[in-house]
Amino acid sequence: MRLDEQLAFVTEIGRLKGVLRQTRLAGLGRRENSAEHSWHLALMALALGEHAPPGTDLSKVIAMVLIHDLVEIDAGDLFVYADERSQRLQDAAEAKAADRIFALLPDDQAVSLRQLWDEFNERRSPEARFARALDRLQPMLENRAAGGGTWLVHGITADQVLVKVALIDDGSPSLGQYARDLVARAVADGILAPGGH
Amino acid sequence: MRLDEQLAFVTEIGRLKGVLRQTRLAGLGRRENSAEHSWHLALMALALGEHAPPGTDLSKVIAMVLIHDLVEIDAGDLFVYADERSQRLQDAAEAKAADRIFALLPDDQAVSLRQLWDEFNERRSPEARFARALDRLQPMLENRAAGGGTWLVHGITADQVLVKVALIDDGSPSLGQYARDLVARAVADGILAPGGH
Repeated sequence: MRLDEQLAFVTEIGRLKGVLRQTRLAGLGRRENSAEHSWHLALMALALGEHAPPGTDLSKVIAMVLIHDLVEIDAGDLFVYADERSQRLQDAAEAKAADRIFALLPDDQAVSLRQLWDEFNERRSPEARFARALDRLQPMLENRAAGGGTWLVHGITADQVLVKVALIDDGSPSLGQYARDLVARAVADGILAPGGH
Repeated sequence: MRLDEQLAFVTEIGRLKGVLRQTRLAGLGRRENSAEHSWHLALMALALGEHAPPGTDLSKVIAMVLIHDLVEIDAGDLFVYADERSQRLQDAAEAKAADRIFALLPDDQAVSLRQLWDEFNERRSPEARFARALDRLQPMLENRAAGGGTWLVHGITADQVLVKVALIDDGSPSLGQYARDLVARAVADGILAPGGH
C-alpha cells in the first residue's frame, strides 16, 4: 500500500538526525547533524532566493536541499576538505545508499526523488548550482559565528576556502562575492589563517 | 542592504537547533530539537503530499513547516498536552517572538513570512490544515519508534492522543485514519495506556 511505503520512508529518514557533520554550532557546544543542516539550507533558499539566477525554480531548490544528505544515513558525512580518494569512495557509497533509501518509496516517487538527487550532485541545472552554493555557504556562516570553528580545528587556510567559494560563484555571483568578503574579514579578524599551507 | 539583513536572519535562526522538544529520538538517546523536527515535517510534505486535499499548494505547505517553529527561539517549545493557561501564555510569547524574528528580514519578506506563519497558526487554508496535520503526526511516529516515548514518560492515554488526532483528520482524512490505527496498535502493543485518566 502506498501510504505504508511512504511512512516506512518517513520513519527511516529520521536517522539523518544522528549523522554528525564536522561543523560545530556556536553556543551549543556540539557538532551539527545533517537533518538540521538541511533545514537551515531550506530556510536559506527561502530567504536568499532572489540571489539565484532569474527563472530559478525555488521549490525545486528547497526539495533538493531537503533530500541532498539522505544518503549519509548509510554513507556518513565526508568533510568538505577530504582528499580525492576519500571523495571517490564516498561517491560510490552514496550512490549505493541512494539505491536503497529512495527505493523505500512507491516507484514513481522513488524515481523522481532519485532524479532530483542526481541533478543536485551533477550540478546540471541552475537549481542544482544554487542549492550547492547554499550548501557551501552555510558552514562558512557557522564557522564565522563560532569564531573559526572547523577552519581552526583542522588548520584550514584562506586559499583552501577560496577554492570552495568558486562553487558558490557558480550558483550565485552575489553570494560568491559575499563569501569572498567573509573570507577576507575572517582573515583580518584572525579566525582564519591567511595564505596556502 | 538587503543581503546583510537576509544573512542576519539566516544566522539568527540557526539558534532553533538549540530548542529542545519533549520528543525523544529512538536510538539516539536524546530529545529532538525544533530545527530537525521542522526538516522532518518538510520531508513528510514531500513524501505524503498526495494525501492532502486536491489543489493543495505543497510548496506553501513546505514553507510553512520550515518556519512554523522559528518563534520558539524566543518562546521555547510547549508540550502538546500542556494546560490551557500555559497555551495562552505561549501564544502571547510566540506572537512577540514573531514580531522580532521576521523583522530581521527586509520588509517585504518580513510581511510575507509573517502572513504565512499567521495562516499556519490560524489554520485558515488547506495548506495550513495539512501542515498542522503533519506536525501532529510526526511525534506519534517518533513515539511509536521509541516504544512509547513521551506517552509513557508523561503518562498520556489513548483518549488524550485521539483528541489530538481530530486535527490530523481536519488536514487529511487518510492520515487521520492512519493515526487512529496507529493509536489502536500502540495500545495493543502496550506502549500507550488505554482509556481516560
